[in-house]
Amino acid sequence: MKTPDSSYPHIVIVGAGFGGLRAARALANAPVRVTLIDRRNYHLFQPLLYQVASAGLSPEDIAYPLRSIFRHQHNLNFVMAEVQQIDLENSRVLTTRGGAIPYDYLILAAGSVTNTFGMPNLNRYAFGLKDLDDALAIRSHVLNQFELATQTADPAQRQAMLTFVVVGGGPTGVECAGALAELIRLVLRKDYPDLDLRQARVVLLEATDRLVSNLPPDLGQAAQRALAQKGVEVWLKAQVQDYDGQRVYLNDGRILPAQTLIWAAGVQAAELAQTLPLALGSQKRVHVLPTLQAPGYPHVFIIGDAAYLEDEHGQPLPMMAPVAMQQGEHAAHNILHALRGEPLQPFRYRNLGSMATIGRNQAVATLFGLHLTGFIAWVIWLFVHLMQLVGFRNRLVVFINWAWEYFRFERAARLIYPMPQVHSAPSTTITPPDEKEPAAVIATIYNPN
Amino acid sequence: MKTPDSSYPHIVIVGAGFGGLRAARALANAPVRVTLIDRRNYHLFQPLLYQVASAGLSPEDIAYPLRSIFRHQHNLNFVMAEVQQIDLENSRVLTTRGGAIPYDYLILAAGSVTNTFGMPNLNRYAFGLKDLDDALAIRSHVLNQFELATQTADPAQRQAMLTFVVVGGGPTGVECAGALAELIRLVLRKDYPDLDLRQARVVLLEATDRLVSNLPPDLGQAAQRALAQKGVEVWLKAQVQDYDGQRVYLNDGRILPAQTLIWAAGVQAAELAQTLPLALGSQKRVHVLPTLQAPGYPHVFIIGDAAYLEDEHGQPLPMMAPVAMQQGEHAAHNILHALRGEPLQPFRYRNLGSMATIGRNQAVATLFGLHLTGFIAWVIWLFVHLMQLVGFRNRLVVFINWAWEYFRFERAARLIYPMPQVHSAPSTTITPPDEKEPAAVIATIYNPN
Repeated sequence: MKTPDSSYPHIVIVGAGFGGLRAARALANAPVRVTLIDRRNYHLFQPLLYQVASAGLSPEDIAYPLRSIFRHQHNLNFVMAEVQQIDLENSRVLTTRGGAIPYDYLILAAGSVTNTFGMPNLNRYAFGLKDLDDALAIRSHVLNQFELATQTADPAQRQAMLTFVVVGGGPTGVECAGALAELIRLVLRKDYPDLDLRQARVVLLEATDRLVSNLPPDLGQAAQRALAQKGVEVWLKAQVQDYDGQRVYLNDGRILPAQTLIWAAGVQAAELAQTLPLALGSQKRVHVLPTLQAPGYPHVFIIGDAAYLEDEHGQPLPMMAPVAMQQGEHAAHNILHALRGEPLQPFRYRNLGSMATIGRNQAVATLFGLHLTGFIAWVIWLFVHLMQLVGFRNRLVVFINWAWEYFRFERAARLIYPMPQVHSAPSTTITPPDEKEPAAVIATIYNPN
Repeated sequence: MKTPDSSYPHIVIVGAGFGGLRAARALANAPVRVTLIDRRNYHLFQPLLYQVASAGLSPEDIAYPLRSIFRHQHNLNFVMAEVQQIDLENSRVLTTRGGAIPYDYLILAAGSVTNTFGMPNLNRYAFGLKDLDDALAIRSHVLNQFELATQTADPAQRQAMLTFVVVGGGPTGVECAGALAELIRLVLRKDYPDLDLRQARVVLLEATDRLVSNLPPDLGQAAQRALAQKGVEVWLKAQVQDYDGQRVYLNDGRILPAQTLIWAAGVQAAELAQTLPLALGSQKRVHVLPTLQAPGYPHVFIIGDAAYLEDEHGQPLPMMAPVAMQQGEHAAHNILHALRGEPLQPFRYRNLGSMATIGRNQAVATLFGLHLTGFIAWVIWLFVHLMQLVGFRNRLVVFINWAWEYFRFERAARLIYPMPQVHSAPSTTITPPDEKEPAAVIATIYNPN
């Protein structure tokens, strides 16, 4: 039984991404009660999401149930619920189905969502790549285009079906474009012997004049060469103006017929953070103090993609997993400092390096100041990601899938997913437990749809 | 390139289940052109579907892309499309997106669908277990009930959330109930230390007075004992009258509050077979001649769950994979006989045995006339199913998942799946290729929704 002392202070963590997870773990042996809230029952290893989209891995390979992760952390309670609002004045979190949850300290790790910069057609026709449902939708759509291409005799139409546009030259866009190009050239080529796959194009559009701008320029150039070798067309200074599901319209007047557009060109802080009565920085991230506290609310810490903080050169900290993880740990430690009456510490980001992979054998990375490219960077990428995957079984199965792909030029997960039926169970009214309970959950209407 | 001689006769196979798959393979080296049509791009290993539902396996573990399976069969073309109608008079198959496909010979292997015997509430509130989307919906729903149960203080409501009713004491119902009971007692018990899981019930309802009636009575009793040991309540002579999503109403007046009902009590032939202008037998299966031909249409063969044929004792052949597989091969051979001007052969079912598993360590089986129970039956069950799974990688990954479960009392796939977004690409008009093409595909409007 999990029986944390109910006199202990109650720390609520919203979001079980990299930041929230690390914060929760950092509080494992402290004299506190922790409630972790997420709308999913799993932690998603987002860096490998593009591999689910490109049919290399299953959702189960990169997602791990939160209750397993925290099985042995006895001071933590997990609540699966969507957070609707943070009530800063009354120190409580309002959820859709868990009711109102009061906190003594809050760590808001709500993450980020796809930002289409107010272009409604992109919301309608483009695919994002932030969660498992996005990845499965891309996978099914891409494979479906190949099936459709075998069923049309119009060459222009077939060309549009077989043109896959990825927008955004950051790590996600580069990895996604590389993986799609390999899926086509190495795997689907064998599946569709009657299709002329020289028609199939993967086009990576980047608005600026360089790729992976979070890495040094020479690595951006290396990434561009590696992508070209894999058959990806890289268009720099190509800014998307509109997309109608059939044609991509660029600012310079160019039109690219394509039935698939994957939008990896921008993210912004989750709405939950945006709507707080606090000043926002770029990408609608909430300005936080160097201690990661919300200005005016010393009991509220905001971390990761949802938080805006600058480094010592005045640059905003990037929206990346390592920043979120370090901040999660830092926020947890600062709360423990506060509880002990000690002064809080300002956050400093330790940049250990960044990397992006470009499919089989190719990656670019900075590590402890070194610039790495090619096979050696790829092996390091593989090792780092495999070691970080939660759970032994996931690591082993992912490794087998990768080895299988590598030696057989195969993709294990080439399924066009059926849409799960929405189950229309009638709505249920949940009767609340006593509000004094550790994970106090107050009356609410639960509607499973 | 796949270039079958276009003067060869054209055999169309509808459905890539066990029967259709076996028929297609039996035609591999014959002087014919084969078109295989399925609405999915994968073959589903249905006997393990309940393991996806009970969070033991991923969809990718039990589904294998059809284009991989037939990569080396050069006389076969795959068309992913839904068949709307069989036009027997004009010898053609009408599909939703592939247009009209003419045939010289047809093998209809359309399979079966869940039969709720005209109870509309069951269609609405109960889960079927026939395809991947059913299995994923059950998995997400069951895990969600546990999350909800942690969030309510009303004991009666919590009891209904934690009561899982499986209807139908055939192999599917028995396997599903056993797997759910183990999921709860061995795995979820550790995930929900604050829930009193003695409250959690798995109830198996069977309308007749015995389980697995396709097996001898002593094995039915063995199955019942094994289920009881796993904590499943078996209610015999319990016939469901209605279900409103909250309460199961039995014919004898009993009412069982339960928020989950899995309907494994009946199947009937797929609508495509039912709607043919032909006489139907029980479960709306189409009466076929002993040669498996449709009466009056000697070029049309109907096999598997869609076909009604009696054995030498006047008993209808069961709706099971082994029957479908043997009939698939038989139909293919009869077509080759017909093409060579030889007499067609009547079908005779070779019953090699049947089996059902009841979770960890327990199964019942008949094999070459022997009655087997317990651990030895389970090992045989494991071996037979693993050997039949298509593809080396699937076998290996499934084996690892099973071994992991077995030694760690874990379930690898405990994810509550997000619903994939329906992608609203605009509808596309497909321009048809020449009708003379091997897999002739005629103009149609494709609407991806």
